Amino acid sequence: MLWYGGDYNPEQWPEDVWADDIVLMRRARVNLVTVGVFAWSRLQPEPDRFDFGWLDRILDRLHTGRIGVALATPTASPPPWFTAQHPGAMPVGRDGVRLTHGSRDTYCVNAPEFRAASRAITDYLSSRYAEHPALKLWHVHNEYGTWCFCDHCAVEFRAFLRARYGFVEQLNEAWCTDFWSQRYADFDEITPPRATQYLTNPAHELDYRRFLSEAMLGHYRQARELIRTRSQAPVTTNFVLGGWVPVDHARWAHEVDLVAIDHYPSSVATATAERAFAADLARGWARAAGHPHGRWLLMEHAPGAVHENGVVRSTGPGAIADAARTYLDRGAVGAMYFQWRASRGGAEQWHPAMVPHAGAGSRVYAEIVALGAELAERQPNRVIADAAVLYDEETMWAWQAPHLLSRHVDYPDLVGRTHRALAVTADAVDVLPVGASLAGYRLVCCPAMYIMSAVTLAALRDYAEAGGTVLMTFGSGLVDETLRVTPGSVEELTGVRIAEWSPLLPGEEVALADGGTGTLWLDELEPLDAETVLAAVDGRPVLTRHAIGAGAVYYLATRLTDEAYTALIAKI
Amino acid sequence: MLWYGGDYNPEQWPEDVWADDIVLMRRARVNLVTVGVFAWSRLQPEPDRFDFGWLDRILDRLHTGRIGVALATPTASPPPWFTAQHPGAMPVGRDGVRLTHGSRDTYCVNAPEFRAASRAITDYLSSRYAEHPALKLWHVHNEYGTWCFCDHCAVEFRAFLRARYGFVEQLNEAWCTDFWSQRYADFDEITPPRATQYLTNPAHELDYRRFLSEAMLGHYRQARELIRTRSQAPVTTNFVLGGWVPVDHARWAHEVDLVAIDHYPSSVATATAERAFAADLARGWARAAGHPHGRWLLMEHAPGAVHENGVVRSTGPGAIADAARTYLDRGAVGAMYFQWRASRGGAEQWHPAMVPHAGAGSRVYAEIVALGAELAERQPNRVIADAAVLYDEETMWAWQAPHLLSRHVDYPDLVGRTHRALAVTADAVDVLPVGASLAGYRLVCCPAMYIMSAVTLAALRDYAEAGGTVLMTFGSGLVDETLRVTPGSVEELTGVRIAEWSPLLPGEEVALADGGTGTLWLDELEPLDAETVLAAVDGRPVLTRHAIGAGAVYYLATRLTDEAYTALIAKI
Amino acid sequence: MLWYGGDYNPEQWPEDVWADDIVLMRRARVNLVTVGVFAWSRLQPEPDRFDFGWLDRILDRLHTGRIGVALATPTASPPPWFTAQHPGAMPVGRDGVRLTHGSRDTYCVNAPEFRAASRAITDYLSSRYAEHPALKLWHVHNEYGTWCFCDHCAVEFRAFLRARYGFVEQLNEAWCTDFWSQRYADFDEITPPRATQYLTNPAHELDYRRFLSEAMLGHYRQARELIRTRSQAPVTTNFVLGGWVPVDHARWAHEVDLVAIDHYPSSVATATAERAFAADLARGWARAAGHPHGRWLLMEHAPGAVHENGVVRSTGPGAIADAARTYLDRGAVGAMYFQWRASRGGAEQWHPAMVPHAGAGSRVYAEIVALGAELAERQPNRVIADAAVLYDEETMWAWQAPHLLSRHVDYPDLVGRTHRALAVTADAVDVLPVGASLAGYRLVCCPAMYIMSAVTLAALRDYAEAGGTVLMTFGSGLVDETLRVTPGSVEELTGVRIAEWSPLLPGEEVALADGGTGTLWLDELEPLDAETVLAAVDGRPVLTRHAIGAGAVYYLATRLTDEAYTALIAKI
Repeated sequence: MLWYGGDYNPEQWPEDVWADDIVLMRRARVNLVTVGVFAWSRLQPEPDRFDFGWLDRILDRLHTGRIGVALATPTASPPPWFTAQHPGAMPVGRDGVRLTHGSRDTYCVNAPEFRAASRAITDYLSSRYAEHPALKLWHVHNEYGTWCFCDHCAVEFRAFLRARYGFVEQLNEAWCTDFWSQRYADFDEITPPRATQYLTNPAHELDYRRFLSEAMLGHYRQARELIRTRSQAPVTTNFVLGGWVPVDHARWAHEVDLVAIDHYPSSVATATAERAFAADLARGWARAAGHPHGRWLLMEHAPGAVHENGVVRSTGPGAIADAARTYLDRGAVGAMYFQWRASRGGAEQWHPAMVPHAGAGSRVYAEIVALGAELAERQPNRVIADAAVLYDEETMWAWQAPHLLSRHVDYPDLVGRTHRALAVTADAVDVLPVGASLAGYRLVCCPAMYIMSAVTLAALRDYAEAGGTVLMTFGSGLVDETLRVTPGSVEELTGVRIAEWSPLLPGEEVALADGGTGTLWLDELEPLDAETVLAAVDGRPVLTRHAIGAGAVYYLATRLTDEAYTALIAKI
Repeated sequence: MLWYGGDYNPEQWPEDVWADDIVLMRRARVNLVTVGVFAWSRLQPEPDRFDFGWLDRILDRLHTGRIGVALATPTASPPPWFTAQHPGAMPVGRDGVRLTHGSRDTYCVNAPEFRAASRAITDYLSSRYAEHPALKLWHVHNEYGTWCFCDHCAVEFRAFLRARYGFVEQLNEAWCTDFWSQRYADFDEITPPRATQYLTNPAHELDYRRFLSEAMLGHYRQARELIRTRSQAPVTTNFVLGGWVPVDHARWAHEVDLVAIDHYPSSVATATAERAFAADLARGWARAAGHPHGRWLLMEHAPGAVHENGVVRSTGPGAIADAARTYLDRGAVGAMYFQWRASRGGAEQWHPAMVPHAGAGSRVYAEIVALGAELAERQPNRVIADAAVLYDEETMWAWQAPHLLSRHVDYPDLVGRTHRALAVTADAVDVLPVGASLAGYRLVCCPAMYIMSAVTLAALRDYAEAGGTVLMTFGSGLVDETLRVTPGSVEELTGVRIAEWSPLLPGEEVALADGGTGTLWLDELEPLDAETVLAAVDGRPVLTRHAIGAGAVYYLATRLTDEAYTALIAKI
Repeated sequence: MLWYGGDYNPEQWPEDVWADDIVLMRRARVNLVTVGVFAWSRLQPEPDRFDFGWLDRILDRLHTGRIGVALATPTASPPPWFTAQHPGAMPVGRDGVRLTHGSRDTYCVNAPEFRAASRAITDYLSSRYAEHPALKLWHVHNEYGTWCFCDHCAVEFRAFLRARYGFVEQLNEAWCTDFWSQRYADFDEITPPRATQYLTNPAHELDYRRFLSEAMLGHYRQARELIRTRSQAPVTTNFVLGGWVPVDHARWAHEVDLVAIDHYPSSVATATAERAFAADLARGWARAAGHPHGRWLLMEHAPGAVHENGVVRSTGPGAIADAARTYLDRGAVGAMYFQWRASRGGAEQWHPAMVPHAGAGSRVYAEIVALGAELAERQPNRVIADAAVLYDEETMWAWQAPHLLSRHVDYPDLVGRTHRALAVTADAVDVLPVGASLAGYRLVCCPAMYIMSAVTLAALRDYAEAGGTVLMTFGSGLVDETLRVTPGSVEELTGVRIAEWSPLLPGEEVALADGGTGTLWLDELEPLDAETVLAAVDGRPVLTRHAIGAGAVYYLATRLTDEAYTALIAKI
């Protein structure tokens, strides 16, 4: 069986609409709805008053309609009274500006008042519904990812650093604080990377993202542990992808009972490729964390439209089913939407929905019904991939620093290109985090992996020696996990000495001997124990091959066109 | 008789220049000058010291020269001592940054200290000059439009909301606060829409603009009432047009004795069309508010140059008179400039002036003299328009929300295009606010009018049934005045069902059956009781006609080219 | 002998690397290294603890290796403990945001605590090493240029203004405060130009930059005087060029024992021209301040790469020596780099270095060694220029105001173009500050010199009367040193009346009679006592010549193409 449904916010509608909802859900074969994500201000309208009557009623109705419930803790959107009572629990930007109520996700995850209020509502909710027959899944919070730089965060950041480094001297060493006289005499001198005069220390920035990920994980775990004392239902949260999110999802995948992602492509033209990537990534996280067959759930996507360049662009007839299949073919155990019924007002009143403003007579709802019938006949797909591409969120964060060798390296784009190129010839492609087992793949690609620990390098070597093929590109292994430069780190693995890391200017092209062109980067390579497979017109090596054990390691020093990249991957 | 003159700031010059000013004004047949707009720091150099001697002298000189005076209350620019004494009366941005002295218009209109200081100087000024023979007009404040988000504003905003909604539950309903858990338990929990985590509630934003408009109106009324207790001269203030100004000018038009606008076109190429639009709009506001013949005053424009793309671009020989005629032909009762004599220093030292830096020997001053002679022979023009286009400032504000169906809808541009297309064939065009009488027009256009109340829909229906023709375009009637989505709201009026509101991407074009192209938007139309006048090449209806009573309602689902739009309007 | 070397930060490396450093320096014939610039947190790890042992050891090692030392006071980068102890000494932006530790240069130069801490470390350092035999030069602070708008600055700014204007009425007159009611009753009402509602007063802005320059100079002088009580070695600081730096370097040139600049070109294509300009400018400052032969030192540049458009772009083989020669040919007494050995971590880990990450086996280091050998044979070059271009940093600041006649005037670009055009035919070109002697030049150019004092005008007249040739362009002499408009100020000098200052729009071109085109600007000229040398196709004069005494003054009313400009300068 597959899950089918979406976020359902009955509190936005009078109860007489609810009956219609159940009828329409059943017609569409909906079997799971996420309830309560943004309901805190309804469940606890005032600090000392709880109102769960309406939730009792709708859960019972859903159960009667044989519709399962993913019950959400509503902590991602505290009510106005919380802000009014606890201004000090609001998040603070780098520049010291304290945000206030008026949107969603406005809290500091480290504020004791927020932790206490979260615990209280979660406690109430989980004790009330632990045994509810409609309950299929606990959906903790929503799209974790809020930044904060407040004093609560400063205290917790220091504790995180103390735990990570032990002695401040270890931190000074790791962060190279002697540059620009940043040497700390004590952990207490460290603050979050707030607004400062000029460039910040990239190691400071990276560790702050690591810290925020852990801090949010602490909040998640608090809810999960409360729930587990009472309920047997699986617990998860919905991951949101994007460079601005300080969450290490590969690590979090170990903490959820089912990996769940929300996914919103950026354009109609690229939507299918983006969906395939996201699906293969969710499966990669799930697989690396030991979830059986890498199963995962698509918790949110948008029916029938893509938000592109400020336009809610219709994807046209038939696209709803195509989109869902793209995810389901890649191992999703369900296709869920945000949201069931379009909101009449509020910030996302124009967000697509299963029942759009045009209502049950609309083409969109008709397609939702048809898809429901299709899904009722399907089972979760089991995917076995023969190729993999590594995708490291810490590397993504590291590439965001403002003063690297090139600010034109778009890491997610480079990994995405690699994924698309692999998908042409591979049976299936896993997008894997660092640390995942590489056994069984015919080819593992490693594009622009800036950060490379000794462990990662050893894993790649072991994989190649055992007969695997590695394709590593420019921009890989420049630094270790503390962001300290590691000259020569990939020399042994690739059989090549990189005499100079050498980015190109935007628009600059290098003519290759095979008639192609290279852009973005062109390392100066000196093959030590590798053959040159492809060179530039001027003779500089561009692609090398190093035989190692039973396998081989290729090193690609530039960015090829999509066509050339696909052909290269097909060949090797 | 027409008013002719400009802002006159004698306090910037030694008194020996004044005599020269009077001579040059008389030579140019200047008969009205605005005095005192930025003179607060001269009139009240210290909190407890007033100095009106210089103003007495210049008013007497002007009167002797038979030059009338529009006497300004100087409250738009408080002196430095005000800031120093009352830091809490300075305006605060969304992000909490409190602004300080150093420019102009730096105050919170809701700060009690600002209200008190405004009252004191207005009291002094109005009692001293109420009977002055040079006095023709009271010019309250200047270009109202300052934003603030401070705590004074928060208090007044809550009072405004209490008055508007009565019970907080009404507000929750209107704002759809159940979305994202924004439900308020009490008005006291509401703040101005300050910096927050993510998207704000568009209804919150719109009501804040409505509130600011009312708050500023309160300040204006305070001055007007003080003045009226002593003086018979008419009272007004100068409206400034622009999307960033939170002033509902249609409403304010009822509060002034003469509608007055300042107008600065954005480029040389579009200046004439922009001037025509502004003039027809000022007349529309005046007419809708019951001012006889829709008469209005051009209080400021720039002589001989346009500020375009960061350049003070000369409009060349002869352009000064052309510009003035464009306004006067459309019903202005006078043409005034900012300013009389160019300032030697300060932020606007390069602003064009009637007497520029080059002095009385300049071409600009010679043209000013020639225009004065021409105007002395003219009378105010009485305009009777046979076509109208609706322009709703609340709709303009609503289109500014960041997360609509499309962020590429430029409402003022769409209304401006419609105005230009109408102007080709109509005798004259009124640009009308919502609520204006539609009787007597042959055609009323309603482009992209996002907000449509039931009252507006009824007025359009009544107008059409009585024999009028309505042209409504895409983007109209999506929401009501609380910004709640209203599916089907225009169905009865247009005879068309809009199956899907469907914006296009920038650059996307739809081929039309008549060889034209549509851009920006293409609703999916299902004619119910309307004929298709124009379709896309693929057959989708693009323009429909619904006969209703003695008239007709056209619905246009896309944006046509300027040429096609003009041809269409000429035809219908 | 020439100085050769770079910034050396041994504190970033274990001591076992130091021995290798000395060997590599000697191999490269390095004879001067700058030590201690960013070492404060090592020299004073805690408020009450100093540690100079490591500095003793490295200075001794360097001396043993016969490598001289430019010893830096480390005050440009206070340690974390300073921030933690003195949050009120951190700089504050216009918007009131107080910055914090995490980068470099994070302090308010006017904060008493920062002055005290600076004095203490400088005192300690200068007394300890005054007699050290390796000491060649004192390098005070680093790249002065930090902005601040805090309350300490407000107090000092008022003192600066009191000293400059004496009475507040003088300031009101100079700043034209009657515009927009900005008249001050007392100096105490004045603040730094903080965030305000709209445009600021340009005179306020300019005086604030003048103040910051003086405030930083006060900090520099404090260090210099302390050092001079103990040491005979020359004292300097390194100037950093750029429009954002509020330092009047021409004035500072009088305060240093050797003019020293840091220089980083903006692109590979323009690097040579930018280097030539910077060198001629440094020499101009030095010459005007009376330094013998205008000698100066290149304190920092980057070996083998240019930071262009976010890319650290290699300049390729051979470019290191070419770059150094460009500076040395123009009178530098040494070529120094930032930095000796590339940093493994920190914000500038990808900054080029003499010993790059690739180490002593790299091409870069090999080129450094070759250049060292070349320099050991060279002596400082003595430059005698026959042409000059004026470059006024106050004018550069003035052109940054947001509301001038045109915001498309890029003053440094216009001066740079003039410099390039001059360089084609002149033996050598001096880039001179206002006030420098003009005697001896065949041609003096004065492009877009917005601010012109009576003294400057007189100097140009005297120079021309004595037989010199002046080429002045549009945009010159619009205002005096208080930024008050001065119509007709250049009339006597140029023999031309400027009827209208008339900027052009971007993209707008004027066809010239000689087939060329003019862009950016086209004054409306009325020759009074000048011949028209070149006119536009429509007859408007574009270039005029006014014979004066034994010389001539040309006035150019537009911007020519580079080719036409070069040809014009060659001709006159």
